[in-house]
Amino acid sequence: MSVSWRGGLSGHIRLIDQTLLPGREKTLAIRDVPRLIEAIRRLRVRGAPAIGVAGAFGVALAARKISATDPTVFLVRLRKASAAIASARPTAVNLAWAVEEILRAGRAAAVQGVPILRQALLDRALTLSDEERARSRAMGDAGARLIRDGGNILTHCNTGALATVGEGTALAAVFRAAARGKRVHVWVDETRPLLQGARLTAWELGRAGIPHTLICDNMAAVVMSAGKVDAVMVGADRIAANGDTANKIGTYGLSVLAKAHGVKFYVVAPVSTFDRGISTGRQIPIEERAPDEVAGFAGKRTAPRDARVFNPAFDVTPAANITAFVTDRGILKRPFARAIRERI
Amino acid sequence: MSVSWRGGLSGHIRLIDQTLLPGREKTLAIRDVPRLIEAIRRLRVRGAPAIGVAGAFGVALAARKISATDPTVFLVRLRKASAAIASARPTAVNLAWAVEEILRAGRAAAVQGVPILRQALLDRALTLSDEERARSRAMGDAGARLIRDGGNILTHCNTGALATVGEGTALAAVFRAAARGKRVHVWVDETRPLLQGARLTAWELGRAGIPHTLICDNMAAVVMSAGKVDAVMVGADRIAANGDTANKIGTYGLSVLAKAHGVKFYVVAPVSTFDRGISTGRQIPIEERAPDEVAGFAGKRTAPRDARVFNPAFDVTPAANITAFVTDRGILKRPFARAIRERI
Repeated sequence: MSVSWRGGLSGHIRLIDQTLLPGREKTLAIRDVPRLIEAIRRLRVRGAPAIGVAGAFGVALAARKISATDPTVFLVRLRKASAAIASARPTAVNLAWAVEEILRAGRAAAVQGVPILRQALLDRALTLSDEERARSRAMGDAGARLIRDGGNILTHCNTGALATVGEGTALAAVFRAAARGKRVHVWVDETRPLLQGARLTAWELGRAGIPHTLICDNMAAVVMSAGKVDAVMVGADRIAANGDTANKIGTYGLSVLAKAHGVKFYVVAPVSTFDRGISTGRQIPIEERAPDEVAGFAGKRTAPRDARVFNPAFDVTPAANITAFVTDRGILKRPFARAIRERI
Repeated sequence: MSVSWRGGLSGHIRLIDQTLLPGREKTLAIRDVPRLIEAIRRLRVRGAPAIGVAGAFGVALAARKISATDPTVFLVRLRKASAAIASARPTAVNLAWAVEEILRAGRAAAVQGVPILRQALLDRALTLSDEERARSRAMGDAGARLIRDGGNILTHCNTGALATVGEGTALAAVFRAAARGKRVHVWVDETRPLLQGARLTAWELGRAGIPHTLICDNMAAVVMSAGKVDAVMVGADRIAANGDTANKIGTYGLSVLAKAHGVKFYVVAPVSTFDRGISTGRQIPIEERAPDEVAGFAGKRTAPRDARVFNPAFDVTPAANITAFVTDRGILKRPFARAIRERI
């Protein structure tokens, strides 16, 4: 599993180091908050639902460093210690949301004293992980119904088991469709700069025995133009109240191409990725990452030393370009603002 | 210069090995046809006008291996020996066109006997190179007029001096605009899989002191959406009689994005890139290259071993997505079929 907790209160987080895949499958044991933050920032663990769960367990790690015996003092210190986890990456709302969920559980248990409170934090994190797994299954089942037998899906980045604690978001729909006996072929965008498609999605689909073809991101348009794509299915990092959706850089461009070619465009995401606190995508903070990611490839410098680089990690797809949302509460259709208000 | 001829009849082709840039600037001496074909196939020399000139010089190399003293026999053997050069890469028409030009000069000189014929081949190749340089200058001057002071141009692949024997095609317009004192900034698509943008275009712009920003191909859409692009300027590998244009993979997608964002889309190409012999882009052969180019980079494998790959080197942009053609005979506007018929 991409992220899990091993042991009881004195346990630790286990996560697959995704930066080493597909070459090497290594599991890391994370025992303190600084290591967790490093793992999140370096994308050793990635995918909005997965970093949410990692953040939830992170609060349990943070609690171990706090010796206060007064619950109120304890919670103040815990909130402070957790703030750095919540902001380790800014775009995916799942991270801040999950940290807040665990703190809320702590507050609810405060009257019972610090020992019970500590246990409540870990229990809530474990439950949250289970909930996310259940959401993944529900999304997969809902999404599978949108895939026809013999269908061709184009996807971007990685939205499989590695990105969640279950089967995934968009890829879960593919896995569930295949499990129901539908033949499905997936066009895999390599997803520059960090190649989550080439490294992770191709690896997951290969292990699942699902036919797929790897392409460079700039080839998606010709594949659509040739009539070889029924639908684009992507995940999400944050969805505003109006349906504007932040996701991996390149998603917005795909949505424009899909619209121009009459290809359906589905966003598959759990309720934890919706941020009803913001009205539109303009309010979503977009993380910019180091120039080296673009100026090189697989650790080798390719561009001239002095080349200036723009490296946004995400972009925002306007709700107008989205055909439907596939969530653990079913499929949301237009008008999205109303569907999100009523069902999320 | 990207490609040139050194010496007289017993001379050789000199070309910069573009696969080593920007890390290393190495000039190769090419003395026989098999080495030339290897250099063209491996993209040591690339860019439609540049491989045209290389092919022209290649006919002069081929002629050296033919000992026939009868001009008719000589020409039959030369045509056979040149066929492999003309078909070393299928998409850019410049290569086959240039080889044909040199053979035509040979036929014209045949009555004067083989020694004169040999000299005529080299002379025509040298003249063709000069003509291409002149075309580059004319294109650059015409294209520069389309760039406003303070303008932002987005470009794909490499269309500078390396791609031609002059200043370039699309990049020549940028160089000429800058030379006239216009401030211009260029968004450089890295251009997967072989990164001609990151490796070559960023290098040429850096050496020319022209401000530029490197992006992944999948970031072009957000840059356009933010209103930061006045025009896309690209080169071409083959232009059909109706204006449909084959160019580096990713160009078609850019044209769709440009249209959706109201961004102008210019194709900059010399007359040698127009193929009036075909009516539409559907007749342009699209080269598919080795899977390894997509599944890894610089010898390092990034995708799983068994990943299936689709790797078309070019795509076709329909004439409908093109604002205008910038040629050495001025700017061609709609209707393109008529403009091409009358002026090319």
